[in-house]
Amino acid sequence: MRYVGFVLVLLTNCVSALWPIPRSIQTSSTALKLSSTFEIHFNIPNPPSDLSAAISRTRSRLHTDTFERLVVGRSETDTNTIQHAPELQSLLVSLTNDSVKSIAEEATLPIDSRSESYQLSIPASSIQRATLSANSTLGLLRGLTTFEQLWFNHNITGGNTKYMLNSPVQIVDSPAFPYRGFSLDTARNFYSVDDILRTVDAMSWVKMSILYWHVADSQSFPLDVPGFPELATQGAYSTSEIYSQSDVKKIVQFANERGIDVVMELDSPGHTTAIGFAHPEHIACPAKSPWQTYANEPPAGQLRIASPDTLNFSKVLFQSVAQMLPGTMMSSGGDEVNLPCWEDDEETQADLTKRNITIADALNQFIVEIQGVLANAKKMPFIKSDMILTHNVPIHNNTVAVVWQSSADAASMAARNVKFIHQPSDYFYLDCGAGEWVGNDVLGNSWCDPFKTWQRAYSFDPFANLTESQHSLVLGGQMPLWSEQSSSENLDSIVWPRLAVGAEIFWTGSTLPDGTPRINPNATSGTNALARLNELRYRLVDRGVKAIALQPKWCVLRPGLCDLDS
Amino acid sequence: MRYVGFVLVLLTNCVSALWPIPRSIQTSSTALKLSSTFEIHFNIPNPPSDLSAAISRTRSRLHTDTFERLVVGRSETDTNTIQHAPELQSLLVSLTNDSVKSIAEEATLPIDSRSESYQLSIPASSIQRATLSANSTLGLLRGLTTFEQLWFNHNITGGNTKYMLNSPVQIVDSPAFPYRGFSLDTARNFYSVDDILRTVDAMSWVKMSILYWHVADSQSFPLDVPGFPELATQGAYSTSEIYSQSDVKKIVQFANERGIDVVMELDSPGHTTAIGFAHPEHIACPAKSPWQTYANEPPAGQLRIASPDTLNFSKVLFQSVAQMLPGTMMSSGGDEVNLPCWEDDEETQADLTKRNITIADALNQFIVEIQGVLANAKKMPFIKSDMILTHNVPIHNNTVAVVWQSSADAASMAARNVKFIHQPSDYFYLDCGAGEWVGNDVLGNSWCDPFKTWQRAYSFDPFANLTESQHSLVLGGQMPLWSEQSSSENLDSIVWPRLAVGAEIFWTGSTLPDGTPRINPNATSGTNALARLNELRYRLVDRGVKAIALQPKWCVLRPGLCDLDS
Repeated sequence: MRYVGFVLVLLTNCVSALWPIPRSIQTSSTALKLSSTFEIHFNIPNPPSDLSAAISRTRSRLHTDTFERLVVGRSETDTNTIQHAPELQSLLVSLTNDSVKSIAEEATLPIDSRSESYQLSIPASSIQRATLSANSTLGLLRGLTTFEQLWFNHNITGGNTKYMLNSPVQIVDSPAFPYRGFSLDTARNFYSVDDILRTVDAMSWVKMSILYWHVADSQSFPLDVPGFPELATQGAYSTSEIYSQSDVKKIVQFANERGIDVVMELDSPGHTTAIGFAHPEHIACPAKSPWQTYANEPPAGQLRIASPDTLNFSKVLFQSVAQMLPGTMMSSGGDEVNLPCWEDDEETQADLTKRNITIADALNQFIVEIQGVLANAKKMPFIKSDMILTHNVPIHNNTVAVVWQSSADAASMAARNVKFIHQPSDYFYLDCGAGEWVGNDVLGNSWCDPFKTWQRAYSFDPFANLTESQHSLVLGGQMPLWSEQSSSENLDSIVWPRLAVGAEIFWTGSTLPDGTPRINPNATSGTNALARLNELRYRLVDRGVKAIALQPKWCVLRPGLCDLDS
Repeated sequence: MRYVGFVLVLLTNCVSALWPIPRSIQTSSTALKLSSTFEIHFNIPNPPSDLSAAISRTRSRLHTDTFERLVVGRSETDTNTIQHAPELQSLLVSLTNDSVKSIAEEATLPIDSRSESYQLSIPASSIQRATLSANSTLGLLRGLTTFEQLWFNHNITGGNTKYMLNSPVQIVDSPAFPYRGFSLDTARNFYSVDDILRTVDAMSWVKMSILYWHVADSQSFPLDVPGFPELATQGAYSTSEIYSQSDVKKIVQFANERGIDVVMELDSPGHTTAIGFAHPEHIACPAKSPWQTYANEPPAGQLRIASPDTLNFSKVLFQSVAQMLPGTMMSSGGDEVNLPCWEDDEETQADLTKRNITIADALNQFIVEIQGVLANAKKMPFIKSDMILTHNVPIHNNTVAVVWQSSADAASMAARNVKFIHQPSDYFYLDCGAGEWVGNDVLGNSWCDPFKTWQRAYSFDPFANLTESQHSLVLGGQMPLWSEQSSSENLDSIVWPRLAVGAEIFWTGSTLPDGTPRINPNATSGTNALARLNELRYRLVDRGVKAIALQPKWCVLRPGLCDLDS
């Protein structure tokens, strides 16, 4: 029967299920099992509790993961191969640094001073132990996620056995970029704390480092800010759609312990209409009609930046939000400010006249003062790229730009010698492609159609159009989910596995470890990534994250056979 | 505060939450509550158990639904309005026909002889009772789903109260088309029985009448066919990805009792590679390389239609599958047959030579014989439109075409005087827009990109380009989900609420009940549909179906305010 041919091809094409791919990896072809008494040892005096918890999670997953190798016949295919395979008895986890900080502490250090590198060695024998070492607990966490991905489940031989086919393995790994983020908009539609925790957990499995939390916007204000309870009680969609201060603590601690820092974005001075539910005195052009004149999307509304009262209110608000989070970064947003909103606002015009300043002066002052508040709170200020490229606002020394409108803007930002992260709408926006949500634009498309496929995202080069001396300006990047057409119901399926593409680009770097392009339309590198991404997708589903299928399972089980010309 | 203005606008804009919109409805503006002792009575001697069960489900939902009216303030907004509202004591359900069949029997009658009409009358007083009458149990079921949609939950006044704001209500309703379907591909990726039951249940809430089950394809054969167990044991993705005969019975009974007939499609002679796992002797060009030469998607493989053995095998197989289902329709597929597959198949060429016939002769014979098997099994044969429009095969008197390649093909089919259903890829394909899934077409789009938005689907006119005398050829239509990039993980979110668009088009007809176009780019009819579709979406979520958000909740709670120019 002709199908047999497929199986033979695949037995020789054993794809390692690592995502992101380590920057240096050597493997061979010996099968290795985990001993039934396999243990993870660590000889770290007074280990931080979050490191112990991370090791416990790894131990637990080595028991509970049921993901089998994606080949025809699944784990049964490997029954004979692994029958007499050597059994790994233990993994020794050790720190090469005497100063032991918790993972949470390491994960919230300044972005350019974190240590995430690790070394992982897996022998091909029953005698030697595997070793994982790093000079930070954060590095150990990254190494543990790699260790977990090395194993497949075998469910035939009575109970589950974990095995791999590629030992010995030598990995020396560290991220190409420290900033590897996901931006979540919780304002257009709300996500539960559980949704966020589940997402953060999955992010940690692919070594992501940042949850960029676009918490509020013109539509709702779901955050209970100390000193400003009225913003949420009046600005949230409902009392059950508010992040309490303990919710925020819970999310931040959960994330930090998993190596993920939380960067809160309180967008301003645009995208702030919802502040007006509690404080109409601070909002110009609230839900003013027609909204197209006054905002990029409904409802219109911006902070009255010319008002000294509003500026003062904003400063105290930013100060309070800044103090909610342990990290060293925070964003004041800054995208899509609309001049007619202020031009047609009587109060703003009166303030400008009284102070004898222009709206540009007021905007500059607002930005400088808010960045000052963030800097004083020891937060590196993040700002949206259009505030710099379109509005030319003065920025703080330490300011990081979020380059979003187009991937082409990265070069413009670099030309200004500003540090930045990539969030290009033409590559990374997870929400694009669902058509128009504006009410009576009945056959329209959304501005960022079409859908950004995983392949499109994966073709992004963080160093495109940059000179080598500009490379150090790139802190990393993030894929955002804007939530006009998303909610709890489709969170997993719209995010996963595409978000992992960003994780690999910014961990592994602008090329594959061997220097070849990540996607080459004339080569098979795209295919190699697909096989690994399929594995990640099935592993995510196995762990309860509802990642979408990228292919028919027939293709998944036969890597390469659904390629063009195959 | 300026936001107050929105609330005032909305109190006067009370949108009825009916989907699909009844073909004749009169409402007024009296608030009405369900009495705490509200009861549904029916004086039908020996009621069929599925009617009793349907009434029980309605009773239950009137207690368990927690969906609140979509206005700012939600149900609290209506607290005063309903405080002294009259209380409806009962609904009387009655049949106007002495011959009582079960819903399941009615739902599996020949498609053109079903009775789904009903009349529903809701008074505006505590004294009169509501009445629902129909001359079939199936009509009563349709009326019950309408009744359920009339009520909103009020959760403030201690316990839940159901109310409406539009009484009295008079509805006289019947479908414009009997065939209102959803086609699900369970071959490219598998869906659990629970996935299918959940989907069927939701389909019944919007009065859909057909589950068109594309059960097998080239990638897998997940159906346990009586007499052919090897097809599934060798052709399914795994032993846990098989629909057993009892699974099929369960699904069919569940669907039939909810007014939904199951039409199984066993695609042939193309899209059959998976039959070759068990029967390689019947498959030409199995997974032959390069697949693009031999099939529209990998893997290649078609039935050896020139082989008498294969024809006989196919006839017995179709006969067996036909006997699995009680309905009067079945499809033998017929899309995308590929001539080079047979031209390059030695066995097929030998058979053609031996029999001194052409491949076209063999195809004609195959189609005629298979349609004959279906007709003998009392199944109206369904066939894909390209088999008629491209291959000009002879068809049975009673054959129904599934017009799929383009909406423009409907007129061509009507010109041949063939009955058909609409399944236009350019309007109705739920899976489009996710980009390419072929392995190394790294930046490619799928053939049916872009995403078919709900607005696009809703703009479809079933009578476009048809003469009035051709209207009776249109049995209805269906939206399909092809599963190359879908699976259990995103089933709800890719299907809902868009599938409801098809439900309304084919229930309510080619225009709105008042004769105006369903979507008019210069009018507000699109907006009205959006408000109702938002209500349906929130009701689906309330009942556990993970339908996607169509708008930010800010817009949902303020119908019209996110329209262009508003």
